Amino acid sequence: MDKFSFGLWTVGWQGRDPFGHASRPPLDAPVTVRKLAELGAWGVTFHDDDLIPFGADAVERDRRVAAFRAALDETGLVVPMVTTDLFTHPVFKDGGFTSNDRTVRRFALRKVLRNLELAAELGAQTIVLWGGREGSEVDAGKDVRAALDRYREALDTIAAHSESQGYGFRFALEPKPNEPRGDILLPTIGHALAFISTLEHESLFGVNPEVGHEQMAGLNFVHGIAQALWQGKLFHIDLNGQKGPRYDQDFVFGHGDLLSAFFLVDLLEHGGYEGPRHFDYKPLRTEDVDGVWASAAANMRTYKLLRERATAFRADPEVQEALRASGVLELSEPTLGEGESIVDFIKGDDDITPAVERGYGFVHLGQLALEHLLGARG
Amino acid sequence: MDKFSFGLWTVGWQGRDPFGHASRPPLDAPVTVRKLAELGAWGVTFHDDDLIPFGADAVERDRRVAAFRAALDETGLVVPMVTTDLFTHPVFKDGGFTSNDRTVRRFALRKVLRNLELAAELGAQTIVLWGGREGSEVDAGKDVRAALDRYREALDTIAAHSESQGYGFRFALEPKPNEPRGDILLPTIGHALAFISTLEHESLFGVNPEVGHEQMAGLNFVHGIAQALWQGKLFHIDLNGQKGPRYDQDFVFGHGDLLSAFFLVDLLEHGGYEGPRHFDYKPLRTEDVDGVWASAAANMRTYKLLRERATAFRADPEVQEALRASGVLELSEPTLGEGESIVDFIKGDDDITPAVERGYGFVHLGQLALEHLLGARG
Amino acid sequence: MDKFSFGLWTVGWQGRDPFGHASRPPLDAPVTVRKLAELGAWGVTFHDDDLIPFGADAVERDRRVAAFRAALDETGLVVPMVTTDLFTHPVFKDGGFTSNDRTVRRFALRKVLRNLELAAELGAQTIVLWGGREGSEVDAGKDVRAALDRYREALDTIAAHSESQGYGFRFALEPKPNEPRGDILLPTIGHALAFISTLEHESLFGVNPEVGHEQMAGLNFVHGIAQALWQGKLFHIDLNGQKGPRYDQDFVFGHGDLLSAFFLVDLLEHGGYEGPRHFDYKPLRTEDVDGVWASAAANMRTYKLLRERATAFRADPEVQEALRASGVLELSEPTLGEGESIVDFIKGDDDITPAVERGYGFVHLGQLALEHLLGARG
Amino acid sequence: MDKFSFGLWTVGWQGRDPFGHASRPPLDAPVTVRKLAELGAWGVTFHDDDLIPFGADAVERDRRVAAFRAALDETGLVVPMVTTDLFTHPVFKDGGFTSNDRTVRRFALRKVLRNLELAAELGAQTIVLWGGREGSEVDAGKDVRAALDRYREALDTIAAHSESQGYGFRFALEPKPNEPRGDILLPTIGHALAFISTLEHESLFGVNPEVGHEQMAGLNFVHGIAQALWQGKLFHIDLNGQKGPRYDQDFVFGHGDLLSAFFLVDLLEHGGYEGPRHFDYKPLRTEDVDGVWASAAANMRTYKLLRERATAFRADPEVQEALRASGVLELSEPTLGEGESIVDFIKGDDDITPAVERGYGFVHLGQLALEHLLGARG
Repeated sequence: MDKFSFGLWTVGWQGRDPFGHASRPPLDAPVTVRKLAELGAWGVTFHDDDLIPFGADAVERDRRVAAFRAALDETGLVVPMVTTDLFTHPVFKDGGFTSNDRTVRRFALRKVLRNLELAAELGAQTIVLWGGREGSEVDAGKDVRAALDRYREALDTIAAHSESQGYGFRFALEPKPNEPRGDILLPTIGHALAFISTLEHESLFGVNPEVGHEQMAGLNFVHGIAQALWQGKLFHIDLNGQKGPRYDQDFVFGHGDLLSAFFLVDLLEHGGYEGPRHFDYKPLRTEDVDGVWASAAANMRTYKLLRERATAFRADPEVQEALRASGVLELSEPTLGEGESIVDFIKGDDDITPAVERGYGFVHLGQLALEHLLGARG
Repeated sequence: MDKFSFGLWTVGWQGRDPFGHASRPPLDAPVTVRKLAELGAWGVTFHDDDLIPFGADAVERDRRVAAFRAALDETGLVVPMVTTDLFTHPVFKDGGFTSNDRTVRRFALRKVLRNLELAAELGAQTIVLWGGREGSEVDAGKDVRAALDRYREALDTIAAHSESQGYGFRFALEPKPNEPRGDILLPTIGHALAFISTLEHESLFGVNPEVGHEQMAGLNFVHGIAQALWQGKLFHIDLNGQKGPRYDQDFVFGHGDLLSAFFLVDLLEHGGYEGPRHFDYKPLRTEDVDGVWASAAANMRTYKLLRERATAFRADPEVQEALRASGVLELSEPTLGEGESIVDFIKGDDDITPAVERGYGFVHLGQLALEHLLGARG
Repeated sequence: MDKFSFGLWTVGWQGRDPFGHASRPPLDAPVTVRKLAELGAWGVTFHDDDLIPFGADAVERDRRVAAFRAALDETGLVVPMVTTDLFTHPVFKDGGFTSNDRTVRRFALRKVLRNLELAAELGAQTIVLWGGREGSEVDAGKDVRAALDRYREALDTIAAHSESQGYGFRFALEPKPNEPRGDILLPTIGHALAFISTLEHESLFGVNPEVGHEQMAGLNFVHGIAQALWQGKLFHIDLNGQKGPRYDQDFVFGHGDLLSAFFLVDLLEHGGYEGPRHFDYKPLRTEDVDGVWASAAANMRTYKLLRERATAFRADPEVQEALRASGVLELSEPTLGEGESIVDFIKGDDDITPAVERGYGFVHLGQLALEHLLGARG
Repeated sequence: MDKFSFGLWTVGWQGRDPFGHASRPPLDAPVTVRKLAELGAWGVTFHDDDLIPFGADAVERDRRVAAFRAALDETGLVVPMVTTDLFTHPVFKDGGFTSNDRTVRRFALRKVLRNLELAAELGAQTIVLWGGREGSEVDAGKDVRAALDRYREALDTIAAHSESQGYGFRFALEPKPNEPRGDILLPTIGHALAFISTLEHESLFGVNPEVGHEQMAGLNFVHGIAQALWQGKLFHIDLNGQKGPRYDQDFVFGHGDLLSAFFLVDLLEHGGYEGPRHFDYKPLRTEDVDGVWASAAANMRTYKLLRERATAFRADPEVQEALRASGVLELSEPTLGEGESIVDFIKGDDDITPAVERGYGFVHLGQLALEHLLGARG
């Protein structure tokens, strides 16, 4: 079965934006679970506060969790991932783990630690951490090196607790360059991977990249995912659509840079990624509840179409020939010969004239991809 | 003495751009050295092909190097850094270390290895590696994971050779998101740091970030530098000016985002960076040779002014008070108490009301910085 | 007296953003008026719904207006501009004047027409129109040509009514490229000016450009303002700060691209603009009420500092000489001689060699500006 | 026959970029004409200096023109458009019509006027004017209002001459935000349309928008084209591909934002545009001459595929129903009733509840478009 998952906050988004009030009523979690199951989804994810309102008492909490579990049991939907909201409440206005206020840092850390128990109860394997408020608008207002110390302290603590409790979680950091903070710490896949290399429990941490977040920095998402895979760190992924550097649009997957979406699906399907295909999108504020469900279905439909096209692309003998002609396959060959000594190598010489004169045929290859994407070949 | 350095290719840029021919004559390297010394520079850097034309024979090479050395000896200018051109010649059209053509990969690797000897001769400590052609325009045309394998192979080889020859170099990777390739591998400081964590001689590698390159991705350069410093990896830096996401402008330092330049100098001067302040800029194509030298001087003048203002900012008691009120200093305090157990911590509770209600005073702090930058306080 | 004005919605912003709840209590309009007066402001502006909650009855309306007027009378603050909120209520989710739903178009048009009366009562001269919801996320969902027909119909109607009632208003369109819609109609100063040229009462319409809105498209704000002035269409201006293409940041004026802010003030002060200096910014969500007022003051303080520096820049004989050497003054001379015939002109020839060889000295001029901005000259 | 046209400078681009030397030999104009004809093109366009090297004498000029004409006659290719190079030669380093140096302005104006004769000889109907060097890097270095005076003077002169000579040309201004200048005057479709409204021979001037140029400013190209069509000003169009705000990429049409390309073709084909489909792209520097021709063919192939898909989209009854449900067709209905008086209208009231509650179904419509684009519907 396709591992398609959705956050409660995605279909549940009520349309509140910086310039407008809600345009849709709230959705009840069990209703959402049943509807997602009906549409063919495999999993559902949530922030603690999506399921249990901030400040709810134990009775309310238990009631909410029970109703959610009942819907899961009934539908067979799984909870592969859980995350913690460290951004909505005004207490987090200067961040969670890296707030300048130590009380806030302690509150944030506790909120995540407590949420692990619920995540474990519900069978989640992955904990996503999006530090959307960890950052600044005024450079003088944040000592970034101290902030990274605190970030590391928090993550080391969380991982230690997960291990000591035997939860066995893997943790996925979600990078974003800006919004809601002027600049967010760990702004890209690269910065997050670099930071992870400094953690005590480094092997438990990977990334949860989001299409739109990298594209807000004008970066090639496929390249970023390839580097994350290459470093063994693609633990989870957020699929959606974005139109380049501007506010975070969270469109339906494919409703942004469609060519990039095609190459992304090609990489995910043929590059060894086994995790969830998590749609972290927002139904447009113009849609009613029917439109919400239509948009949820559109994400899955588009993914499947792109997979079908990517498979045909890879199977086409003309594509195979074009890949060969472009040298794409040749790049796996080491640059030095086996056992070649560096000192001898330096002295040698190769005739570069053929390499100067050759054409790589990349445009032809790109056009083949485009035509497969358009379903225009056979 | 201020460690101000310039590349031969900076003042020597003749004004060739994608839409226009050269507007200035070439500059002779010894002339450049003498003029830079006269203006107060401390160091000069170069690509192999800046000093010795591509394909020059041994006689020509020796003549060029001797003339350059004579000018260095005469002026006392040092050569703190050397780099290798793997982008100008058409042989590198699909990259150097990661070209799909193995002949090119071998040629590129040899070119760098051979250049190490010259760098050592001239006393350089740092080798910069900018992989401007390592990338793609068509996603299908580059197997990014294979490319990263080849990139790593090349860097492991170079470091091994440097060590075995006793050169003692440190290597600094220079990230850039795009231009001249549609997308370049290792596009940001973060991606480069992450990649470095996978290298065999990891400790010999750091980054050489350029102001404009990060700003082409809309990223906060000061945050990136802070992360590089925090990871102990700021080996070199390229100072210039840029107006956000667009073509690589290489303006004079400060002639872009001036507030960011102020906070950058503040961080470099008060954050423990001891390396060169390297200006990697281009004199505007509209300038004649006098304008070239005026622009070189402007870089240094601006740096000194910003340093003066940053020092006054830090020394102002009102700023100190504002930093305290904003909690900037408080962030160095660990979130957990010494010896505090996680299990006890989870059970505890803090009153968050004061944290919800407090104001952080970041705008006041930012305004104090702006007024110090403007020389408008005292 | 400096014509500094603020919108009620600026200092009154409660900190609700796409990822967070309000962090500050609401501010009462009369309190705001008194506080702005105390800080040295000259004017206050508002959307209808800032002053009178959407859906309030006549009694409530009158009470609110009376309290507001009392505060104006007491403080001497004027109301130079009024605007209408066509974006917050969910009815406007697909736009106001250009909603696909005709009921909405009629409701929007009525809302603006009714607001004119209040604006006239309070003595406003300018009506700003920001069509933040006029746009689309899905190209197929909006017939842009039909939308421009409806936009024109609405503006023609409003102007006709203003004239027939003898209100004497001038109308200023406020462009923005995106957010809250994926793409907004009339996205830049240019598009708005072009559209205005098609209106029935063309002379009554101009633009109200906002610093951040143009910079979200990576455009040079000073150039845009110069074109608006040149076309006689700069009717109002929104000053704030932005860090390039990303979400709409609404920072304090100057807390974005500071060099551009300097050249903007230079142009406004020496270019014949006589209208209000309207600060359309948002106090950071991290600030408390004291921080709100500090941020309001910072806008005015920065404007005055930049004006002082621009005046000194223009008065400096070295700057005058640099402007002359760069040919800046020469550009006012017509290209053809007086009475020169085109046919004779074509046959002629000028020696271009001096023009090829000359340097324009723009970097020197830019550095003089930067040093004046830094208060580093005399 | 499809009006597909190419510039000599497109397929003829040798691959010189800011960081690299030419990777391909020059192409002879007659060879290009024959090859384009063979590939199915209808027209060819050029800058004066593409056909006749800058500074060539009369003999050389005549020889080149004769050879070009012979190839045109032989193949039946037409020359629908001609343009003038005011950017490559260093004399234009500060612009052509708006250079601060009057000698340059006169030289530029003469160069365009003289080129009109050749354009007329070859039967061109449209003259494109791209002012790529009209702009600045340093705001103080260009008096934008004086520059716009000179720009207008030049265009008024050119149009007057064209009319007096009976050439009957239409002129199309090509906007671009930046590169090669830091900021270019008339940066977007909007700014150009606004400027045109001030010209003496306003009706002779329209725009020649380029896909990538608007997308470098993050603008919606389809919206811009719709406004140009609405104002009756779409005189010519440059089709290519771009990946958002960065350097000018000039990819093959469709090899950028593919969804936008689909909606563009839909608008051009169903929106009444009758002019050339001009591909202003650059074959990647990695390609050899075979790759150049493959890339030229790819532009036309992609256009035809997108047209086929747009036609099927419009013909699909489900799409028609979705357009109706979204209110797209309803937008053509005036907001006011025929003869409805404004005063009565203001007093009226409509029930907005249905409009608040309705969903617009834009996501469904967008998904239908995407699936038609992918050839996934019937």
